[in-house]
Amino acid sequence: QGGSSSSFRDDTYASIIEGLKKIYSNKIKPIETTYNFEGFHSPPLTDSDIEAKPIVLLIGQYSTGKTTFIKYLLDREYPGSHVGVEPTTDRFVAVMNGVEDRVIPGNAAAVDAQLPFRGLNKFGQTFLSRFQVSQLSSHVLEKMTIIDTPGILSGDKQRLDRGYDFTAIIEWFAERADLILLLFDSHKLDISNEFRMAIHSLRGQEEKVRVLLNKTDMVDGQQLMRVYGALMWSLGRVVQTPEVMRVFLGSFWLEKPLNVFEDCRTLIESEQKDLLDSLRELPRNATVRKINEIVKRARLAKVHAYIIGHLKKEMPAMFGKQSKQNELINGLDKEFIKIQQRHQLAPGDFPNVEKFKRGLGIYKFDKFHSLKPQILEKVEDALSADLPKLITKFPPGNRMLSHAERNPFGNSE
Amino acid sequence: QGGSSSSFRDDTYASIIEGLKKIYSNKIKPIETTYNFEGFHSPPLTDSDIEAKPIVLLIGQYSTGKTTFIKYLLDREYPGSHVGVEPTTDRFVAVMNGVEDRVIPGNAAAVDAQLPFRGLNKFGQTFLSRFQVSQLSSHVLEKMTIIDTPGILSGDKQRLDRGYDFTAIIEWFAERADLILLLFDSHKLDISNEFRMAIHSLRGQEEKVRVLLNKTDMVDGQQLMRVYGALMWSLGRVVQTPEVMRVFLGSFWLEKPLNVFEDCRTLIESEQKDLLDSLRELPRNATVRKINEIVKRARLAKVHAYIIGHLKKEMPAMFGKQSKQNELINGLDKEFIKIQQRHQLAPGDFPNVEKFKRGLGIYKFDKFHSLKPQILEKVEDALSADLPKLITKFPPGNRMLSHAERNPFGNSE
Ligand SMILES: Nc1ncnc2c1ncn2[C@@H]1O[C@H](COP(=O)(O)OP(=O)(O)OP(=O)(O)O)[C@@H](O)[C@H]1O
Ligand SMILES: Nc1ncnc2c1ncn2[C@@H]1O[C@H](COP(=O)(O)OP(=O)(O)OP(=O)(O)O)[C@@H](O)[C@H]1O
Ligand SMILES: [Mg+2]
Ligand SMILES: [Mg+2]
Repeated sequence: QGGSSSSFRDDTYASIIEGLKKIYSNKIKPIETTYNFEGFHSPPLTDSDIEAKPIVLLIGQYSTGKTTFIKYLLDREYPGSHVGVEPTTDRFVAVMNGVEDRVIPGNAAAVDAQLPFRGLNKFGQTFLSRFQVSQLSSHVLEKMTIIDTPGILSGDKQRLDRGYDFTAIIEWFAERADLILLLFDSHKLDISNEFRMAIHSLRGQEEKVRVLLNKTDMVDGQQLMRVYGALMWSLGRVVQTPEVMRVFLGSFWLEKPLNVFEDCRTLIESEQKDLLDSLRELPRNATVRKINEIVKRARLAKVHAYIIGHLKKEMPAMFGKQSKQNELINGLDKEFIKIQQRHQLAPGDFPNVEKFKRGLGIYKFDKFHSLKPQILEKVEDALSADLPKLITKFPPGNRMLSHAERNPFGNSE
Repeated sequence: QGGSSSSFRDDTYASIIEGLKKIYSNKIKPIETTYNFEGFHSPPLTDSDIEAKPIVLLIGQYSTGKTTFIKYLLDREYPGSHVGVEPTTDRFVAVMNGVEDRVIPGNAAAVDAQLPFRGLNKFGQTFLSRFQVSQLSSHVLEKMTIIDTPGILSGDKQRLDRGYDFTAIIEWFAERADLILLLFDSHKLDISNEFRMAIHSLRGQEEKVRVLLNKTDMVDGQQLMRVYGALMWSLGRVVQTPEVMRVFLGSFWLEKPLNVFEDCRTLIESEQKDLLDSLRELPRNATVRKINEIVKRARLAKVHAYIIGHLKKEMPAMFGKQSKQNELINGLDKEFIKIQQRHQLAPGDFPNVEKFKRGLGIYKFDKFHSLKPQILEKVEDALSADLPKLITKFPPGNRMLSHAERNPFGNSE
């Protein structure tokens, strides 16, 4: 019994993220801004980009216990939450950490630069009136943002009653999520259409998807096996990945009544623990992903600096600037090879030549900065010392699941 | 613990089969022999055709516990059985009831008119030397014949080592079986190729197939769930039927050691009970099937008698027999309609006209028997009184499984 809020207190990853922010702004961002990285690739990262919390997306038919699951995790209700047997949650809710309880309506949330929801504007007013951010102070939410969603309805009802494109919204959140949890109700049977819809809207995101077969103690052990088996059977048919999707058995709620079935209690407890563990792994995984992204970005920024510095150096001091610039653009592939040879850079780290040519169009090469060793040294430093050192701060992870998750019946030919 | 031999003693169906034999030979067979039924359809049934026991076919990779399962059912080993960790059973064994322990080699068994194995001759000597009948006296075997098979090996080994077409043999038995039990070992993982092979050779027989995930107490509850889930996932992909295949969890052996996992004991016991129940249902199902076949046969024999009697009646007493016979054959479709109208017979009960014409070729119509009311009355009697009365002798069945076997995630559109 009891929520699980307190077990999310570990702050290891927060300090790694702090370190990452420092390395980026002191050692990588300078080379980006000096050599016009933004014009060819993407704008500099902000602190809030790097801090952005992993997102957990909950999806399921109505009344499968999505909102109740969040209540269990937080050990309390989030501001504006509704739990009940009818379809109750009538909007998408981003449940986020905050200093105090606060509800931000969708319209306001979608223009707030501090929140990662500006992309939702394109779905229009009808949707935004069905979206909100609910803030509260919680150890769990220091580690992740949770998206509660309205229960999936069957085909027509979905389209007619809502007035916005439910599936498109689910896809938007699914792309941005770090973990997608699909909930099913062990007790409630005929859910075929909704089931298929949910799975289809998650195509391409399969490796993030976990399934929770919820309310497992409302049926006896044998019924549970039948339902679980039927679920796996059907998932096997709909999901295209070779790996078996991980399905957790559980019953997540705080007000557990006395008359529940107990015959699979040990099993269900271990399963619940595994699901909570994989939520606890999220900050780790998200942090690993962010470090990898920044390493990739730093390598690209370094190569970019060499290219820009090289083009600057090739420019004549006085006359014939325009014709030299044109000559360099036309022979850019040969210039790339020269740069690779001169600085021992891997061709694979170089951007696409044609795309780069198009990026060059708006610049005057003689306005570029020349190569400055002290800026380059900073990136080299980040890549060879600071970032590797950050990785050593990771506590050893929980990799025990991987073996059990393997499909013994998979096609190994 | 202990086998289950004693719980198969119920003799209800034996007495129904006795009744069926009497009805057939007294009331249906006479009409067949009087009106040349054999020449157009099939030879008269023998007592041993009607008595034939339901067949249970066991299939699985080697060491999944097929032979041990039989030992559990019979509460003893069958003559010539081998149990062990290496591939042990090296032949197909039909385990049948008999007054005493006896092993009949394949060659002898395949020529014995009392045994249902004459069809195996076509597979040749190499196979017959790998086939045997093992007889022993057992209450279980009074109700069914069990086919033990050599463990499935991976692709090439299967073909090279055996010297006969394993898959063709499996198909032959599968067609004749009333229940096909596919065994898997919860403890042993990589079995992909064999698994696929086994399933593919059972195409078209899916409704007879049940799966036993065996040795379930050799892994803990969570591992069992993973294995069971992966099995269902893979079955869902390979098996084409919309209905979920029934998978039983169990561990069937007599010498259960002490150090087995106990966390799913209640569940496994219920599952084992269900599997044994469905074996106990076999005589009932096989008996129902036989009654249905004989009802169909009696209706066909009745219609057949009307056709033959009609053709006889249409023949002239003295001259022009051949030309009248030809005229009747050419206009046989019109004669069929006359017969239907005169005797109020359903067109659907009539045989295919063209096929019937071909059957008529070798007969002289004036040698046919005329319609004899007392023979016809017997069939009518069988259809309207005797066979329905036989059905009332059925004890109420166990239909509880059907709901649980339904797939709640199936496509209900
Ligand atoms: N683990 C559980 N076992 C049994 N009942 C539960 C469990 N979790 C939730 N419930 C009950 O199921 C009902 C639906 O719960 P809840 O509102 O959390 O579902 P939901 O998925 O958020 O539904 P909606 O999509 O309509 O918002 C409530 O009555 C709740 O008390
Ligand atoms: N329920 C069970 N739990 C644990 N071990 C078992 C169980 N049933 C059988 N075994 C063991 O597994 C091994 C293989 O058993 P068995 O010979 O019956 O398998 P089989 O399927 O008949 O194999 P083959 O295809 O080679 O004939 C034996 O060592 C047996 O004792
Ligand atoms: Mg809800
Ligand atoms: Mg064997």
